[in-house]
Amino acid sequence: MALFSLAAGDGHAAVFATSAAITIIVAAGCILTTKGRPFELGFRDAALLTVTAWFVVPVFAALPLLADPIALSPIDAYFEMVSGLTTTGSTVMTGLDTMPGSILLWRSSVQWIGGIGIIGIAIVILPFLKIGGMQLFRLESSDRSEKSLPRVRGVATAVGQIYLALTLACFITYWGLGMSPFDALNHAFTTVPTAGFSTHDASFAYFASPAIEWAGVIFMILGALPFLAYLRLVRGRTLQERIDSQVVTLIAALAVFVFIVAIWLHFTHGFDAATSLTKSAFNVASVMTTSGFSSTDYVAWGAFASTLMFVLIFVGGCTGSTAGGLKIFRFQVMAGIVSQHLRRTVHPHVVMPIRYGTRTVTDEQVASVGGFVFLVFLSFAVLALFLGALGLDAETSLSAAAATINNVGPGIGPIVGPAGNYASLPEMAKLVLCVAMIMGRLEILGVLVLFLPSFYR
Amino acid sequence: MALFSLAAGDGHAAVFATSAAITIIVAAGCILTTKGRPFELGFRDAALLTVTAWFVVPVFAALPLLADPIALSPIDAYFEMVSGLTTTGSTVMTGLDTMPGSILLWRSSVQWIGGIGIIGIAIVILPFLKIGGMQLFRLESSDRSEKSLPRVRGVATAVGQIYLALTLACFITYWGLGMSPFDALNHAFTTVPTAGFSTHDASFAYFASPAIEWAGVIFMILGALPFLAYLRLVRGRTLQERIDSQVVTLIAALAVFVFIVAIWLHFTHGFDAATSLTKSAFNVASVMTTSGFSSTDYVAWGAFASTLMFVLIFVGGCTGSTAGGLKIFRFQVMAGIVSQHLRRTVHPHVVMPIRYGTRTVTDEQVASVGGFVFLVFLSFAVLALFLGALGLDAETSLSAAAATINNVGPGIGPIVGPAGNYASLPEMAKLVLCVAMIMGRLEILGVLVLFLPSFYR
Repeated sequence: MALFSLAAGDGHAAVFATSAAITIIVAAGCILTTKGRPFELGFRDAALLTVTAWFVVPVFAALPLLADPIALSPIDAYFEMVSGLTTTGSTVMTGLDTMPGSILLWRSSVQWIGGIGIIGIAIVILPFLKIGGMQLFRLESSDRSEKSLPRVRGVATAVGQIYLALTLACFITYWGLGMSPFDALNHAFTTVPTAGFSTHDASFAYFASPAIEWAGVIFMILGALPFLAYLRLVRGRTLQERIDSQVVTLIAALAVFVFIVAIWLHFTHGFDAATSLTKSAFNVASVMTTSGFSSTDYVAWGAFASTLMFVLIFVGGCTGSTAGGLKIFRFQVMAGIVSQHLRRTVHPHVVMPIRYGTRTVTDEQVASVGGFVFLVFLSFAVLALFLGALGLDAETSLSAAAATINNVGPGIGPIVGPAGNYASLPEMAKLVLCVAMIMGRLEILGVLVLFLPSFYR
Repeated sequence: MALFSLAAGDGHAAVFATSAAITIIVAAGCILTTKGRPFELGFRDAALLTVTAWFVVPVFAALPLLADPIALSPIDAYFEMVSGLTTTGSTVMTGLDTMPGSILLWRSSVQWIGGIGIIGIAIVILPFLKIGGMQLFRLESSDRSEKSLPRVRGVATAVGQIYLALTLACFITYWGLGMSPFDALNHAFTTVPTAGFSTHDASFAYFASPAIEWAGVIFMILGALPFLAYLRLVRGRTLQERIDSQVVTLIAALAVFVFIVAIWLHFTHGFDAATSLTKSAFNVASVMTTSGFSSTDYVAWGAFASTLMFVLIFVGGCTGSTAGGLKIFRFQVMAGIVSQHLRRTVHPHVVMPIRYGTRTVTDEQVASVGGFVFLVFLSFAVLALFLGALGLDAETSLSAAAATINNVGPGIGPIVGPAGNYASLPEMAKLVLCVAMIMGRLEILGVLVLFLPSFYR
C-alpha cells in the first residue's frame, strides 16, 4: 500500500510505511514470545483465535486513518475498519471523492480481505462449531480427521481461485462499462465480498449508469452465492448434486421482492418501467445480499419501501458466501419446521421428517436453527435498546442495530439511511456497533461461546 | 344490556333489543337448519368452529354500535368488536366520556367474555392442537379420553370461579379507591382479561390516582398469570408443584423492566422516585401483560422508552391466561435451546436435555416453539408490509402490526400510540388488522391449519 501511495504520489506513503512498521513489530513480538512452545490448534484455540483476530486486526488496519489529512478519531477509525473487515459497509467518512487514492484503496482492500476471511470461516470453522444449523454444510469428509486436511486445503485453494476470478471479472466489467480503472478496482474489491464501501459519497449513484447498476446487481448476487456451490456446479454428477437449493430460493426471493418494489415505484412514483426495475433491482439486491451500496435514497421512496428494506435487512444471502443476515437456508429450515408443525397439528401420528435438499434435517439441527434465529432477534432487541438509551431515536436505533448485526451497512431513516452515515452517532454507540458487527459476522454464537464458563474447562 | 340501558334511561334500550333480536333470529335459524343431524365434535369441527366463532361473533356484537348516536361505519364497528373480543384493546372510538353508559358497558362486557373465552381455548383446545409447544400444558389426563371430560369440566368450573372472583375483587378495589361504581365495573371487566378498553379517552390518566394505577398493575398481572397456576397453588403437594416457573419468570422480568424504565424516567425526565416508579410500573405492566391501558403517553418519554415498549409488545404474559404476545414459557424454552446449543458447541458429545419446570422438553416441542416464534415474526413482517403498502408510515405500520398480532392494543408513534387511536387508518388497514388480531389470539396456527389442503381430507 505504501508502494501504491508512492506510485500515485498522493503523499501517503509515509503513513502506510509507519503503520506497516508498527504492525510488523507487534506481530514479530507475538511470534517471538510464543516461539518454541508446543503448538496444537484445538477447538478452543481456533475459536479464541478467530474472535481475537476479528477484534484486533481492525486496530492495526485503522492506523493509516489516524494521520492527516484524514485524521479520524481512534474510535471512528476503528469503527470504519471493523465495518470494512466484517464487510458491513457502514461508514463514518465523508468527502470520499477528494480523498487520497491510497486511503480509498486501503478501505476497499480491507473489505476484500475480510470477504475471503469470512468465506474461509464459514466453510471451515462454523460447521464444526455447529453454529445455527451450520452442521448441514460440513464437508462430507470432515469427520475423518486425518484425511480431511488435504481436502480442506484443496477446497480452500479452489474457493480462493473463484474469489479471484470473480473479482477480476467484476473489475473488467466495471471498467468496460465506463468506470475509471481505479474506481473499477475499488468497486470490484467491495462488490464481490458484498461489502459496500465506495470511492464516492454518492456510492453507485455517482456513475448514473443503469448498465453499471445491473453489473453491480449481478456481481453482488454472485458474491452472495455459496462459494462451494460453484464447485458443485462443476463437479456434481447429477443435476440435484449440481444445483444448490439455497441458490434457487435466493434468486426466486430476489425476483419476487424486486418485482414488488418495481411495481410500487412505477405506480406511486411514476418512474418508467425500465427505471423502476433498475432502481428496485439494485437497491433490493444491495440490501438482501447485505452489500449496502445505494443508487438512490430508498428512504425517500416512502414508508412501504422503508419498511420492506427494514425487513429485508434480516434476510441475507447464502451461507458459505460473504453475505450476512439470517441467511436463506435458515428460512428454508424454518419453513420446513412450520410446515411440519402445521401438518402434525392435523395428522398427529404421521412421521414427517424435515428435508433440506437431499438431506434430512435432524432434531439437533432444528434446535440449532431455531435457537439461532431467536438469538439474532434477541441480540437485535438488546442492541436497539442500548442505542435508544444512548439517545438515538427509535428508527435510528432499530435500523442501525439491524444493519450492523446483519452486516448490511446502511439502515433506514435520515441518520443511518443510505443518504446519511454513522459519523454523527455518539462514540459509545459506535463502539457498541463494532461489537455488533463482529458478533453478526461470527454468527453471534461464535463470540458467545467465549463467555461460557465451561468453555475454559 | 337492553334492560341496563332501560334502567339507566340512556335511550339505547331499543338499539340493544333490536340487536339481540337479530342475533337470536339468526342463531335460531342456524339451530333449526342443523337440528336432527348426527352430531359429533371431532378435531376438525372444533378448529373450524373456533375460528368461525371469532370471526362471526364480532359481527353481531357490532350491531349496537351502528345506530345513532354512535353510528360507526360497519368496518369501524367490526374492528372495535374484534379488538374487544380478542381483548386487544385497540379502539377507533373517541368521546368515550360522553357516550351512553350502555355502549360503554357493552364494550367492556365483550372484552370480559372474550377473556374467559380465550382462557378456555388456551386450556382446552390449543394444547390438543400442539400449537407452538402448547402440548407442554396438556392436562395430565388429557390422553385418556373417556375419563377426561369430567376432569375438563371440573377445571373449567374452577377457572370460571377464579375469573369471577378476580373480577369481583378488582371491582371492589377500584370502587374503594375512588372510582365511580360504573367506572369500577367497566375497568374490572377490562383489567382482569388484560384487555384495555376504558370509559375515558384518557384511560387511567383520567383518575390521576397512583393508588388506582397500582391496583391496575396488580390486577393486570393477576390476569396475565396462568389460571391453572391458581389451582396448582391450592392443590399442589410439593413446593415445586405449587410454583409455576412461568410466574416467577414473568414477575422477575417485569421487575427488571419496571426498574430500568423508572431509572430512565428519574434521571432523564426529573420525575421523583415515586412518580417514576408508578408511571413505569403501570405502563410496562400494561404493555407486557398486553392490556394496553395507559396512564401517560409513553411515546413522549423519548426514543429509549418507545423502543423498549416496542420490544415488550412481543413479550406477553403467561399461557393459559388472557395475555397475548409470544408468552413467557416460549422465552424460557428458547433460552433453554440457546443455552443447550452453546454448551453443545463446546462439548459436542454431552447429552443435555432442555428442561421446563419438572418436565423435559421433547424435540417435537422444541420444533413447535421455534416454528411458532419464527411464524410470529414472519406474520408481523408481512402485516407491517401490507400496512406500509396502504400508505402508513414505517413507525405506524410496524407498531400497529406488532400491537395487534400480539393483542396489546396501542403501539408507538403519534397515530397508533397511547395518545392516538386507530380511527384515522384506512378501512382496508382496519380489516387487515382485524384478521391480525384474531390470528394473534388463536396463536396464528389455529387459523392457518384451515388453509392446509390436508385439513379437509
